[in-house]
Amino acid sequence: MTLPRAPRGRPRDSRAHQAILTAAAELVAELGYAATSIGAVAARAGVGKDTVYRRWSGKAELVYEAVFTGTEAAPVPDTGSLPGDLTALLEELVQEFSAPAAAAALPGLLADFAASPELQARIRSEFLAPAKAGLVELFERAVQRGEVDPGLPVDLVLDTLAGAIFFHVGLVGEQPSPRLATQLAALVGRGIESR
Amino acid sequence: MTLPRAPRGRPRDSRAHQAILTAAAELVAELGYAATSIGAVAARAGVGKDTVYRRWSGKAELVYEAVFTGTEAAPVPDTGSLPGDLTALLEELVQEFSAPAAAAALPGLLADFAASPELQARIRSEFLAPAKAGLVELFERAVQRGEVDPGLPVDLVLDTLAGAIFFHVGLVGEQPSPRLATQLAALVGRGIESR
Repeated sequence: MTLPRAPRGRPRDSRAHQAILTAAAELVAELGYAATSIGAVAARAGVGKDTVYRRWSGKAELVYEAVFTGTEAAPVPDTGSLPGDLTALLEELVQEFSAPAAAAALPGLLADFAASPELQARIRSEFLAPAKAGLVELFERAVQRGEVDPGLPVDLVLDTLAGAIFFHVGLVGEQPSPRLATQLAALVGRGIESR
Repeated sequence: MTLPRAPRGRPRDSRAHQAILTAAAELVAELGYAATSIGAVAARAGVGKDTVYRRWSGKAELVYEAVFTGTEAAPVPDTGSLPGDLTALLEELVQEFSAPAAAAALPGLLADFAASPELQARIRSEFLAPAKAGLVELFERAVQRGEVDPGLPVDLVLDTLAGAIFFHVGLVGEQPSPRLATQLAALVGRGIESR
């Protein structure tokens, strides 16, 4: 018996969806987080506010998706080696956290997250958990190649990669060196490889 | 010829200094960052506002020192091995980021840092850079023991340790497992050890 497949792919109104995300990222970069409103995002995207609220719980969730999910939207790197895959993943994260919209959005987003445990839980379940689940295959391939042992704490490895970039680029505000992704991939890759 | 030693140790008014830091951490944990004022901190510490402003540029710098410099105030770990030293360092960081004052202070502090490049630069030069410089000896001892190679990117390693804890505990809001410090010390320790 074949189980019916769950519907996949972009939702039916994917063009509106993408227009809303683009408008949100643009407005945050132009005006800052505080001055960006759902009304302004809807107007720029050419949709009604209802359309925005049908998909997102509010500004924080919308801006989070618009600015900080580029890495998860990209295909999982598959370069043929663990250091290559980690470098590609880290390059995406560096790009994400170096973008003007990211710097503009981060403080306001963090304040909204801190003020609402519900929102924080929603971001964890809607975005962070699926993003991590999607990246598991990167480590499964490394296990198959014998590069890492099964039983690797993948969740902690991913938090380490994201945290290092978040702290170094997003928070400490260092201009990322062109070698950052490679250096960090080497450090973490050596840390988790099988012996 | 003996060069005169630079004055070291706690400043002359170290009791007032410590009372101000304690009052700031307490008030942030009790009232939140936004509702904490320099006047309230001074009153609880039993000093005048002038005494506070003589040492700190404002609330953000004071609260940062009060809440996020426990690790740098502690002696540099010296357990005899790199994994032991990294575990001890990470345990301090976990404790720092799990404290109620840290959760209460983080969003407001980040917002203030983001709004002021001068403040961000000051925190980098007054706190982060000296803290990193102090930890260099931990890695120098590991080099002497042959555990790591000279030329290790110490700055990036420290950002990785702090970023992983910051992201996992401070931001994603995970309740830290008792094994977190050990697991991360093993991961990063293996990543940087000499072969």
